[in-house]
Amino acid sequence: MAEKAMVLKNFINGEWVESRTQEFAEVRNSATDEVIALCPMSLQSDADQAVQAGKDAFWEWRTTPIPERIEYMFALKQKMQENKSELAKIISAEHGKTYKEGLDELTRTLQYVEDACAMPQLMKGAYTEDIAHGVDEYFVREPLGVFLVLPPFNFPAMIPTYFVWAVAAGNPVLIKSSSICPMTVQKIVELVQETGLPKGVLNLIHGSGSGMGNYLISHPDIVGVSFVGSSQVGLEIYKGATAHGKRAQVQGGAKNHALVMDDAVMDETIKNVVSSCFGHIGERCFAVSNVLVAEAVYDEFKEKFLAATKALKVGSGTDETTNLGPVVSRKHLNKLLEEIEIGVEEGGKLLLDGRGVKVEGYPNGYFLGPTIFEAEPEMHIFQEELFGPVRCLKKVKDLDEAIEIINQSRYGHTAVIYTETGAYARDFIQQCEVGQVGVNIGTPAPIAFYPVGGRKLSMYGSTRGRANDAVDFYTDKKVVVTRWLKRKVKEAGKSTGVPVNW
Amino acid sequence: MAEKAMVLKNFINGEWVESRTQEFAEVRNSATDEVIALCPMSLQSDADQAVQAGKDAFWEWRTTPIPERIEYMFALKQKMQENKSELAKIISAEHGKTYKEGLDELTRTLQYVEDACAMPQLMKGAYTEDIAHGVDEYFVREPLGVFLVLPPFNFPAMIPTYFVWAVAAGNPVLIKSSSICPMTVQKIVELVQETGLPKGVLNLIHGSGSGMGNYLISHPDIVGVSFVGSSQVGLEIYKGATAHGKRAQVQGGAKNHALVMDDAVMDETIKNVVSSCFGHIGERCFAVSNVLVAEAVYDEFKEKFLAATKALKVGSGTDETTNLGPVVSRKHLNKLLEEIEIGVEEGGKLLLDGRGVKVEGYPNGYFLGPTIFEAEPEMHIFQEELFGPVRCLKKVKDLDEAIEIINQSRYGHTAVIYTETGAYARDFIQQCEVGQVGVNIGTPAPIAFYPVGGRKLSMYGSTRGRANDAVDFYTDKKVVVTRWLKRKVKEAGKSTGVPVNW
Amino acid sequence: MAEKAMVLKNFINGEWVESRTQEFAEVRNSATDEVIALCPMSLQSDADQAVQAGKDAFWEWRTTPIPERIEYMFALKQKMQENKSELAKIISAEHGKTYKEGLDELTRTLQYVEDACAMPQLMKGAYTEDIAHGVDEYFVREPLGVFLVLPPFNFPAMIPTYFVWAVAAGNPVLIKSSSICPMTVQKIVELVQETGLPKGVLNLIHGSGSGMGNYLISHPDIVGVSFVGSSQVGLEIYKGATAHGKRAQVQGGAKNHALVMDDAVMDETIKNVVSSCFGHIGERCFAVSNVLVAEAVYDEFKEKFLAATKALKVGSGTDETTNLGPVVSRKHLNKLLEEIEIGVEEGGKLLLDGRGVKVEGYPNGYFLGPTIFEAEPEMHIFQEELFGPVRCLKKVKDLDEAIEIINQSRYGHTAVIYTETGAYARDFIQQCEVGQVGVNIGTPAPIAFYPVGGRKLSMYGSTRGRANDAVDFYTDKKVVVTRWLKRKVKEAGKSTGVPVNW
Amino acid sequence: MAEKAMVLKNFINGEWVESRTQEFAEVRNSATDEVIALCPMSLQSDADQAVQAGKDAFWEWRTTPIPERIEYMFALKQKMQENKSELAKIISAEHGKTYKEGLDELTRTLQYVEDACAMPQLMKGAYTEDIAHGVDEYFVREPLGVFLVLPPFNFPAMIPTYFVWAVAAGNPVLIKSSSICPMTVQKIVELVQETGLPKGVLNLIHGSGSGMGNYLISHPDIVGVSFVGSSQVGLEIYKGATAHGKRAQVQGGAKNHALVMDDAVMDETIKNVVSSCFGHIGERCFAVSNVLVAEAVYDEFKEKFLAATKALKVGSGTDETTNLGPVVSRKHLNKLLEEIEIGVEEGGKLLLDGRGVKVEGYPNGYFLGPTIFEAEPEMHIFQEELFGPVRCLKKVKDLDEAIEIINQSRYGHTAVIYTETGAYARDFIQQCEVGQVGVNIGTPAPIAFYPVGGRKLSMYGSTRGRANDAVDFYTDKKVVVTRWLKRKVKEAGKSTGVPVNW
Repeated sequence: MAEKAMVLKNFINGEWVESRTQEFAEVRNSATDEVIALCPMSLQSDADQAVQAGKDAFWEWRTTPIPERIEYMFALKQKMQENKSELAKIISAEHGKTYKEGLDELTRTLQYVEDACAMPQLMKGAYTEDIAHGVDEYFVREPLGVFLVLPPFNFPAMIPTYFVWAVAAGNPVLIKSSSICPMTVQKIVELVQETGLPKGVLNLIHGSGSGMGNYLISHPDIVGVSFVGSSQVGLEIYKGATAHGKRAQVQGGAKNHALVMDDAVMDETIKNVVSSCFGHIGERCFAVSNVLVAEAVYDEFKEKFLAATKALKVGSGTDETTNLGPVVSRKHLNKLLEEIEIGVEEGGKLLLDGRGVKVEGYPNGYFLGPTIFEAEPEMHIFQEELFGPVRCLKKVKDLDEAIEIINQSRYGHTAVIYTETGAYARDFIQQCEVGQVGVNIGTPAPIAFYPVGGRKLSMYGSTRGRANDAVDFYTDKKVVVTRWLKRKVKEAGKSTGVPVNW
Repeated sequence: MAEKAMVLKNFINGEWVESRTQEFAEVRNSATDEVIALCPMSLQSDADQAVQAGKDAFWEWRTTPIPERIEYMFALKQKMQENKSELAKIISAEHGKTYKEGLDELTRTLQYVEDACAMPQLMKGAYTEDIAHGVDEYFVREPLGVFLVLPPFNFPAMIPTYFVWAVAAGNPVLIKSSSICPMTVQKIVELVQETGLPKGVLNLIHGSGSGMGNYLISHPDIVGVSFVGSSQVGLEIYKGATAHGKRAQVQGGAKNHALVMDDAVMDETIKNVVSSCFGHIGERCFAVSNVLVAEAVYDEFKEKFLAATKALKVGSGTDETTNLGPVVSRKHLNKLLEEIEIGVEEGGKLLLDGRGVKVEGYPNGYFLGPTIFEAEPEMHIFQEELFGPVRCLKKVKDLDEAIEIINQSRYGHTAVIYTETGAYARDFIQQCEVGQVGVNIGTPAPIAFYPVGGRKLSMYGSTRGRANDAVDFYTDKKVVVTRWLKRKVKEAGKSTGVPVNW
Repeated sequence: MAEKAMVLKNFINGEWVESRTQEFAEVRNSATDEVIALCPMSLQSDADQAVQAGKDAFWEWRTTPIPERIEYMFALKQKMQENKSELAKIISAEHGKTYKEGLDELTRTLQYVEDACAMPQLMKGAYTEDIAHGVDEYFVREPLGVFLVLPPFNFPAMIPTYFVWAVAAGNPVLIKSSSICPMTVQKIVELVQETGLPKGVLNLIHGSGSGMGNYLISHPDIVGVSFVGSSQVGLEIYKGATAHGKRAQVQGGAKNHALVMDDAVMDETIKNVVSSCFGHIGERCFAVSNVLVAEAVYDEFKEKFLAATKALKVGSGTDETTNLGPVVSRKHLNKLLEEIEIGVEEGGKLLLDGRGVKVEGYPNGYFLGPTIFEAEPEMHIFQEELFGPVRCLKKVKDLDEAIEIINQSRYGHTAVIYTETGAYARDFIQQCEVGQVGVNIGTPAPIAFYPVGGRKLSMYGSTRGRANDAVDFYTDKKVVVTRWLKRKVKEAGKSTGVPVNW
Repeated sequence: MAEKAMVLKNFINGEWVESRTQEFAEVRNSATDEVIALCPMSLQSDADQAVQAGKDAFWEWRTTPIPERIEYMFALKQKMQENKSELAKIISAEHGKTYKEGLDELTRTLQYVEDACAMPQLMKGAYTEDIAHGVDEYFVREPLGVFLVLPPFNFPAMIPTYFVWAVAAGNPVLIKSSSICPMTVQKIVELVQETGLPKGVLNLIHGSGSGMGNYLISHPDIVGVSFVGSSQVGLEIYKGATAHGKRAQVQGGAKNHALVMDDAVMDETIKNVVSSCFGHIGERCFAVSNVLVAEAVYDEFKEKFLAATKALKVGSGTDETTNLGPVVSRKHLNKLLEEIEIGVEEGGKLLLDGRGVKVEGYPNGYFLGPTIFEAEPEMHIFQEELFGPVRCLKKVKDLDEAIEIINQSRYGHTAVIYTETGAYARDFIQQCEVGQVGVNIGTPAPIAFYPVGGRKLSMYGSTRGRANDAVDFYTDKKVVVTRWLKRKVKEAGKSTGVPVNW
């Protein structure tokens, strides 16, 4: 793949078309630094065509019976399963995570498609007879028009696949790819095309976030926007879309805390914390960033945690023995190096320094080894989302101190407790102001049939992502009130109940 | 009340009518043995009138808009609140439980009425547009006709009030009172009458279980039966009603186990176990019967449990300092005395013997002090439902032995664990074959907005009692499929989605 | 297939095993009368093994995560799609319906499997925090054990496939095939086997209804029974299963009415009524049996209805031009001939006589041409379920008379109205005491994601079949109430709400 | 009431406090022009205290068990019922609508409170066991903090009462009254106070929309905003609140269409259209504004519609014979007079001119008689929301033309069809891009247990108002994923299903 960079195309109205743009972003293999694809910074005219294609497809798709609509989802599941290996390779190449992590991502992605297959259950409206004499009332969940999906780079397959709920609910969707990792979604859209989904129902456009993203969120024919990414960009998207009267569902960044209580089962905990901290190179919003440890077990935990982390092998995602691939881009690597510098300057104690790691055979890869600070809540590295393998450790007195630290964060995505005591867990669950809580689970990402969300800077909007909440977001409950006037009610023939044993 | 025994009446078609029967059951004050009411063993002709009244009321009530129907429930709540004290006194007099326990029962009873007030939410059907081109499908939850409610004696207010879900859902109901405790329900029906509920919607008939009960479950105009009582009678009701093609929902007996693990918080646990074992004189299906205790804490638990139980004051329910009132009848007292005898004979070790307890001023009361055996699973007293203040204690090796004992019981109502360890609780919850599990809660009775049920001998039927399940039981989901042929679909005017920012 | 009759096997614990029985039922091709399979009348020992296999598989299957369980359903869908043509041929051969009708049946069958794929949504329990201070309550939908599925002959693929909801919900299932049409389900179970479903989770046994069926419904290790068939047998099953304390869900027979109002769109109506009356040779519980026609259009309807019915071609199901295949067996043919005789004797006016129809090349087929009576409600042919191409026509004065006739039927399965007037439809929908109502749809069978049921003799039990109701039937809502005692609530760290704009 | 103007107070932290502001808005009786109250333009410091009171009350209220929380709702219902007459008088005085219309408004308001009483059902989360081996997942609906409710003037009791869902769900609420009609909400809050609701849970502040409203939507401790009012102000609120990262739910204006088909039942239709056009002086977002009439019945409809409208009596709301009270303010009257002028100038044909109406005894009232234009879709009066008794009439060719006109409106609140034909209704329901559709019901306002919303300019946000949607808006679904490590799974004691017939 590395020799000649593929020029990505837009998928508009059922066809792959090249943008007339002259501007392209380079997509690079994170382990080799080679350019593997050129991602067009599409023109507004490309976007207009893509939106129009959705608009034109709307009515027919919206009135396509729901049992027919979900057949495309069943077909997509099958095709994604058959292409799992190829997809995982693309993910690894453009993102850096390991092939195995790519497969894991695809397992979750498939579960999204599976939940969209449940759309006949998810889309049921309600019905009530006789809200007043002879008056009935019901609601229908109606799709609304063309939705925009704006995925981030870090889960190149999973987040773009948010579209399945919108589409299965009867809406056309336009995906604007992340220009850092646009190849996986291109492949997924090819698989969608193979299912025979009617043209115009799903469209894909490549382009810049600031340019194309901003253009689209103000486009008059986009009815709503689903975004996942950083909190800063997220707030701009939320403001921009709502300023144009649109629905917006924004999942932002995170700074997640794990708390290790003194009764935690230590070895399992270590394993789980390490995996949450450094899986997917720490580039996920569910990763644990700050590890709080009860003082009674702090020293033990610290020692074992450092040992386990040191044992992680940094390398290319294609290498089966790799635990930690390269970060997504050189730019991101440089940013992380700066953050580490800041951490050191503000007094963080560098327990493990991942800088300067070398990977044989990959001299140009964007590698950063796992890095662990002993840090305090007021520090930058403790508060800011770093999105990479840089983590903080802190000793706490008790549960209450931990919860206080967690609730002082500006983010409110997840919090995790390691304990075997029901009472600790219950307090922690109830008192942490976050969207997800894990008990002995470092990465409490809701499964596809549960909604995902957050508090504070971690989410903007009134409905969560995925599952039932996605259906709420992508539909409106049209209420219908009916009364027929030509009726004459007669006594004869009226039931007096059902005699059952004739 | 004691001087002259009130002759109870039936409530048929909005009026209080005396049965022409010559046969009456004596309702006696359990503390004084005085006859306080005469409960007619009504005739089949009385029953026929009551059923007919329901049948005649059905259509109009079923088509009464649901917002109007629930107004009677709101009114009933208010009236029951205003009469709480009087109701608690009646409960205590006819049943024996303390005045305070009567109030507690009424608090729960009121929550039933409150949940019935939520009927507009509970009765919503579903709606789907375009299941095929131009074809819509929905379901309406329809009431079915006259339901029969057969309450037991032990919760004279609470269980008869099951009728609220049936009635709020649009069905007429006939309650056949327990002839042991028929006075409370008589008072409740008076309060219903005061709400102005249309005549015939709720009817009450007094009569014997074997005679009147059996007659009614085979009555052609009864569409379904809701029974709470012993498993033996329950199975007869289930067989009898279903043999006539009816719906039946039967909640039977119980033999509940509590397990005290070695990490239980001991003092709270003792308090809670004692309350569950001996509250309401042990005459409730949620009472703990067998207490299993981990060997490490067995001796400590036993000592404290006995001490706490000995401290319970036996007396009249009207005495504020009483913890344990008399059992419901002399017959029941005699049965319990026999059971104790059997327990002794089969080798149970009598740790605490409640026989021969004397209560000053109440020489004729049906008193039995708390009685505790050390017993083994194969014993009669360990396996049979005793329904009174007779309990068993047993040492167990570990969680697994306890679960094994619990799952070998023929009953499957509730199981309770006392522990602070999440893992123990989780295993216990998942592995016990019972309808309810309590964690550090001895009496895990579902709150009114959750359904109640059991496994094995403890429940017969496919739907639980109360809440959403009650609505499932008292209604049918009529499915409607519609298609209109006179339609001509045109392109003009069709939506292409909702442009939002004009 | 016709030359040598295949000996059917039981599928027990993941293996195809021959029964040691000496008794076999002949399965015959309805068009040729040739024996195409021998269906073993299995022994009780076979049944015991099958039940035991389910019992042994229960715990592991019940604790298999639900996302894994549904993968077998997705796989089954794929395999059934790939084998659709072969399955339709088997259906046509053993049942008689046309190949195309077989395909239609399979389309619906596939939708059952699709709805079972939605099990993660269907099985969600409920959760409530703080029902009292520090007390939480929730319920889990738990599978219960081995369920028995007893399908009829008339939809050889569809009804046996009821098992998907039970299995996806975590229960083992035993199907006892209909000995008249056991070949299709044998093929389906082969496809299930190919999905790799763990052994013992689905078992199939062939046997007689009276012998094996009755044995199984009283088997101690069967927890519930799902039956579809005639009302007479259904009531026996309902009585038998419930007498042993089991859950039972019984869908019985039907005698469905269509009402043609004077404003009906005539040509579409004729087409639709004919299809409902004679599709699947009239052997389906959703078929229209009695056609009521408003007097203003009676003559016109009658003429056109007879003409359209006469145009139906009777023949072998394998012949592409056939509209009406043979009935299922010679015995059934003879019964229908008797019914026609009775109809004539009781004064029914034979408008169209299908007796004596000859089909070239199929001298031994069980053919009966479409037969139409002009009949009155009090007649046997108007009231009894005939289950074949014998229909009644009757003139009615108005909507009220029609509803009265419909509500006097002992069956309550479906009723259909043909009209363009909203008010007529609304009255008809509300007033007919049936489980399903069609508006301009002769066969208002609920789609797979809606529950199916009936009233009066047409259904016994409290929960409907399929979809959400199937989940209610195949699971119990275990209620869990938790409280942790070791908690100390502190003010610090407690949330005061989520400040969102830092 | 008219003699001395009452000075309104704020309700903060359980107490009525006077603002230190020097600025007051005059609340005038619409029929007499007398000042009946002085509404303080409260200071930001007042607002800060009110928000802080809510913030302080949050944690305790949020952890108050839900059965206790709803008791305040039950109590409020009772108090509002007892004070219905007084409330209706206040409504009529400050708003102008008739006393009877005030009572009607209160009936709906009470239904809101009733739906909030169903909160235990509405707030249930979900629970799934074993999403992976030994891993459970559930969500809890958690309240979020202090919500702001911004009601309009036109339903002085109903819209402020939106707070009940927020409060019953566990959130503190701050209501900022409409300064035009602040007296009714003041009275309602007095009734809330009488229920004993804990201090700080509900707070009320009076102030200007532009000043106080804008201050509050950017307040850091307000977590979300529920607004009902005009689309222009609504969009500002939506932008403003979301720009600060908050949830916002905005219901804006409307321009509703009714379509009278040629088969409409004419007399009932006339009555219903007139009521919808002129009820509550046309000042409601569910009022029909533009009446489209099929050409075949246009002349008949026009004649009867004019006649029926002319028969409406304009007068004081306190006069029992009045049909149409004064508009809400002199300012609003002047605006309406200008709109009529514009209508005339742009060529609208004035069929009925309500200007210059005189009401005896009320020389200073803001009266405007019903006014009807024959107008075209491109006109200002046809497109703009007028919010008063000024309506347009237009002849249309057929259903399709009508739907086209409706869908070209910038508003998308409701559309109504008058027809007896199912097919017309079905097309109209499906094709109109509005939030509510009425069939033979001019004012299809969803009943309290259904959500209310709109499309295009009529609603901003992802969740509708009231009922289940209100609960979605006022809560977040916190997802909890649990796993306990200390578990050892053993074979013994594991269930093999539930043997039911021992």
